[in-house]
Amino acid sequence: MITVTLLGSGGGMPMPQRFLSSLIIQYKGRKILVDCGEGTQVAMRKVNTGFKSIDIICITHIHGDHLFGLPGLLMTMGNSDRHSPVTIIGCEGISEVVKGLMSAISYLPFELNIIENPIIPLEIICSPDGLEVKEHGKSQVHEIIISTLELEHSSPCLGYGFHVIRKPKFSLEKATFYGVPKGIWGRLQNGEAVIYNHIKYEPSMVLGEKRKGIKISFITDTRPIKTISTFIQESDLFICEGTYGDNNDIEKAIKNKHMTFQEAAKLAKEGDVKELLLTHFSTAIGQPEDYRLNAQAVFNNTIIGVDGLTKTLSF
Amino acid sequence: MITVTLLGSGGGMPMPQRFLSSLIIQYKGRKILVDCGEGTQVAMRKVNTGFKSIDIICITHIHGDHLFGLPGLLMTMGNSDRHSPVTIIGCEGISEVVKGLMSAISYLPFELNIIENPIIPLEIICSPDGLEVKEHGKSQVHEIIISTLELEHSSPCLGYGFHVIRKPKFSLEKATFYGVPKGIWGRLQNGEAVIYNHIKYEPSMVLGEKRKGIKISFITDTRPIKTISTFIQESDLFICEGTYGDNNDIEKAIKNKHMTFQEAAKLAKEGDVKELLLTHFSTAIGQPEDYRLNAQAVFNNTIIGVDGLTKTLSF
Repeated sequence: MITVTLLGSGGGMPMPQRFLSSLIIQYKGRKILVDCGEGTQVAMRKVNTGFKSIDIICITHIHGDHLFGLPGLLMTMGNSDRHSPVTIIGCEGISEVVKGLMSAISYLPFELNIIENPIIPLEIICSPDGLEVKEHGKSQVHEIIISTLELEHSSPCLGYGFHVIRKPKFSLEKATFYGVPKGIWGRLQNGEAVIYNHIKYEPSMVLGEKRKGIKISFITDTRPIKTISTFIQESDLFICEGTYGDNNDIEKAIKNKHMTFQEAAKLAKEGDVKELLLTHFSTAIGQPEDYRLNAQAVFNNTIIGVDGLTKTLSF
Repeated sequence: MITVTLLGSGGGMPMPQRFLSSLIIQYKGRKILVDCGEGTQVAMRKVNTGFKSIDIICITHIHGDHLFGLPGLLMTMGNSDRHSPVTIIGCEGISEVVKGLMSAISYLPFELNIIENPIIPLEIICSPDGLEVKEHGKSQVHEIIISTLELEHSSPCLGYGFHVIRKPKFSLEKATFYGVPKGIWGRLQNGEAVIYNHIKYEPSMVLGEKRKGIKISFITDTRPIKTISTFIQESDLFICEGTYGDNNDIEKAIKNKHMTFQEAAKLAKEGDVKELLLTHFSTAIGQPEDYRLNAQAVFNNTIIGVDGLTKTLSF
């Protein structure tokens, strides 16, 4: 089971009535944060997510509204007795910027691992210390895959895909056929190869048919380029920027390299996703709900994001 | 007339119900901001102060709750059509830290002048472009003096004094005695020496008795060291940290280099100030008002700060 909370739904500047767009994904008590503008830690307090168990922070791009909350959040995590390393994933240039932003922090009680512009999908295992990022192909037991897509914005920008893997069904038939001892069924089903009484058993000896996992896609800030619909294909939840609600704001959207609600809805349709959650609303939009029909005219299953909105996704 | 607004009253970490301690001083339509933690720009929006006319930003010390809002605020000022330079005054190390925090900003449409750890009081003139900082003794027409005091905290920290000068009374008697032409009375009274018809006239030729200006002191974060009571002497408004409300928290205050409400009140009494405004409350204090009597037992004219509290001070 995955819980996804939209911490904020605004773009550009933090406002009294709307936190900046940011998402927290909770899985097995651990957390992945996507974007961290000024005030994200306050939004987290409002929904009581806690700070200690954030293991991975994904930053889409180096614009203030997506990362100026980072130094404050990291300090608060340090004050929350966090000691195990935290991984920051981001676009080109993220290492240098994080280093700069950290200049005002004399001490953090945990290490920062920075992964800049990853090309190959990252495999995430869930260890007792939390979510750990492993090199591609190095772990058979990874539970989440994080992939990225280069977007088209006014600065280098990454879209993120989170694919939570569902274990294949356990096949009693196969286990019996291969004579797998009962005591190692669980480890094999978890993807681990096991040597038992000098015999090597592979996961495939107990695994039955593959099952669809959960796919969450997060796309902001960008124009609606073609590669997005492939990247988000069949997502269970597609969180997408909708900076402008009014279809007539298309020229502003093109100029500022953003999208209208309707453009995001078109991507949702082309990507054949289950549900579209709009976020990153311009500060000029008072009530994003007023523009809901512009999206629903193209893709009916659209939710207009509000701060603190939580969705639970199950296999 | 000076308007002083306590934008936030919290210390340590930004909270949903309390912005971080920060003060804005408004004088002749221009602004001086003191401290800028995460969310200060949101607090400014709540009280509608505007962003364009902030000319000077004073930072007490390099702890996140006092300066992590700076990059976001500067960007918002840039988006508010600000073009004239902004002066940042701060403690030792401020230049390096501001440089680091700025690493994520590709462009600001105004210059930043950074004054690190000023020893001599700064003289502020009010020009058509806003408040400008002049070297000591370089301007006869300065209207505000900003002085600093080294405090005792866990990192280098400055207290700030803002002395708004009131022009001496105009003396018709003197002006007549020296035969000063009527047309230059105003310029002379504003502190300018004027050459008119080959004769040099000095301001002292029209100025009568001196008049008391307005003194505002801002002291956070620190232990209550002796030099403070001299520095804040006879302030009209003494804004002071009161991190802990309970007198029994004195050990925490000593350990963390902060003050209790009562320690701040003792300083107010020793400094013979008119009014004490407490701020920078620990996140552990739910209702700072609950501890009001601990301060008032020592100094009656104490206000417990709340976000957005505004005071108007007149000559």
